Amino acid sequence: MKRHVVGIDIGGTKLATVVADSTGHILNKVRKPTLAERGPEYALQLLFDMVRETVVLAGLEQKAISAIGVSCGGPLDTKTGIVYSPPNLPGWDALPLKTQLESEFQIPVTIENDANASALAEYRFGGGRGYNAVLYMTMSTGIGGGIVLDGQVYHGANDSAGEVGHQILVPDGPRCGCGKRGCLEALCSGPAIARRAQAAVRKQLIDGNASTVLLDLAGGRIEDIKSEHVLEAGRQDDVLALQLVEETAYYMGWGIANLVNILNPDIVLLGTIAIAAGDLLLDPIRKTVSEFAMTRPAEAVKIAPAQLGDALGDLAAVALVV
Amino acid sequence: MKRHVVGIDIGGTKLATVVADSTGHILNKVRKPTLAERGPEYALQLLFDMVRETVVLAGLEQKAISAIGVSCGGPLDTKTGIVYSPPNLPGWDALPLKTQLESEFQIPVTIENDANASALAEYRFGGGRGYNAVLYMTMSTGIGGGIVLDGQVYHGANDSAGEVGHQILVPDGPRCGCGKRGCLEALCSGPAIARRAQAAVRKQLIDGNASTVLLDLAGGRIEDIKSEHVLEAGRQDDVLALQLVEETAYYMGWGIANLVNILNPDIVLLGTIAIAAGDLLLDPIRKTVSEFAMTRPAEAVKIAPAQLGDALGDLAAVALVV
Repeated sequence: MKRHVVGIDIGGTKLATVVADSTGHILNKVRKPTLAERGPEYALQLLFDMVRETVVLAGLEQKAISAIGVSCGGPLDTKTGIVYSPPNLPGWDALPLKTQLESEFQIPVTIENDANASALAEYRFGGGRGYNAVLYMTMSTGIGGGIVLDGQVYHGANDSAGEVGHQILVPDGPRCGCGKRGCLEALCSGPAIARRAQAAVRKQLIDGNASTVLLDLAGGRIEDIKSEHVLEAGRQDDVLALQLVEETAYYMGWGIANLVNILNPDIVLLGTIAIAAGDLLLDPIRKTVSEFAMTRPAEAVKIAPAQLGDALGDLAAVALVV
Repeated sequence: MKRHVVGIDIGGTKLATVVADSTGHILNKVRKPTLAERGPEYALQLLFDMVRETVVLAGLEQKAISAIGVSCGGPLDTKTGIVYSPPNLPGWDALPLKTQLESEFQIPVTIENDANASALAEYRFGGGRGYNAVLYMTMSTGIGGGIVLDGQVYHGANDSAGEVGHQILVPDGPRCGCGKRGCLEALCSGPAIARRAQAAVRKQLIDGNASTVLLDLAGGRIEDIKSEHVLEAGRQDDVLALQLVEETAYYMGWGIANLVNILNPDIVLLGTIAIAAGDLLLDPIRKTVSEFAMTRPAEAVKIAPAQLGDALGDLAAVALVV
């Protein structure tokens, strides 16, 4: 009988369960809102039901499932499978997620933080295939990272490796969600780009020389300007938007150059915003990396958009167990 | 018969060959000046003779030697064993060092850049024993680095991993030997500390408020002030020297915090200047790391002086083959 697995993707707003075959092909999927405010007991019970439902919908019996992979916001301990208070999951304090799933389904469960699991999925099924040293970087609400070396997630001393978004570039820069200042994330995440765009438009208005389409794209409200509007305006050759893209690329390129010098990766795969932006953002990032990194590691590295797109969350969980 | 190895340490000013037993215990050593200006042919012939001499002085026959380890300035390719124009070895352009040694002695040769070999030596024989993720950082003429994961040097895509001294912290900062600006090395290497000290003393003299002992320690000549004098003056509670130490610790701590976030090491071992300075420098470094790094990886990491001291060069070469 063919070996199947279940993947569980736990986010702050939604839960997803999938059944996949041994090649990572997804047979079925169930999604539900996390309703994080109801706490972990509710979510866990919901997940138990969702797993069973997904297996049934895939036309399988539960005994056809050999393992469960879980992609979840960290921090978490991959060995014990305990989740420690992820910012997006209030009340998940020292939750023994692995043990609870294993005792419910009596099969091995592997849990991994979402950035690491995504990096592994890109290595197994996406843009990282065939490379020995893969660095994956999310670029959305935050800037997370996962490092895959010789096909294995690199965890470090206590599962905290790959916090690439919290390297500090500008110690007196904007406040980061982590409490420090001037982290790469505080400069280049979606909200950080939006914040810089809003400030720049506000300045244009005060200076009386508003010439950007950004405000129109956001329906006339400065506080509704988002990183998507910056990319859209940039594609229309809006001067201010292109400046904001250049600035973002400068900081991203600087941060990636440091990572290239330290990790000497074969490939750096950038998610979400970088996928949406394409070469508008990637080309100036590549330029900054080649200026700021040492010649040898800069020559060795490819900088490319991540490939799995919307399938990433599902495949992240699946990649842990196929 | 006991298995012995030869270690070769190739520096820009001196060559050393040692014979060690299988536990890394060094039986004998020969040192000669590199005379780098005479080029690689001369150095190579000299090394052949030195290896033979060391083996004889150790009371061994050549057949008792099972392998040769070579620690050499990079860049170099550990697979092919070719050395590519190290800055301190003029004329060593694409030199097939491994092949030439293997054809001379008919035993396996492993070559490694000196920072990586030193990191491995600290893992095998020094402060890194028992740790899975070890980061070693030199702190002398330059700031190099070596990463040892699960007992293996981490090389990256093309043997360029661990260039931790060239992470850029201040893009408009002082010029680095690598051609960029504001690398950690341009802020915290011995020459960088000396340069900052000289500038600070010059300023005090111009301002007419010279109160530091730095100038006396350097024999009255500003241009002779070295990093050693800064440490010595710091130990005498010289205010200016302590400011310079604090500043150095701030940049080192910032750079190490970034590395802690990225690599999540069990231990960071700091060489040369940090060994000489001890807690005078290490305590403020630890303070900055705990301020700038994420809580979890900061809690996991120890920051300590490297342990092998003067024996490091010899053991670096030996560690590659025992």
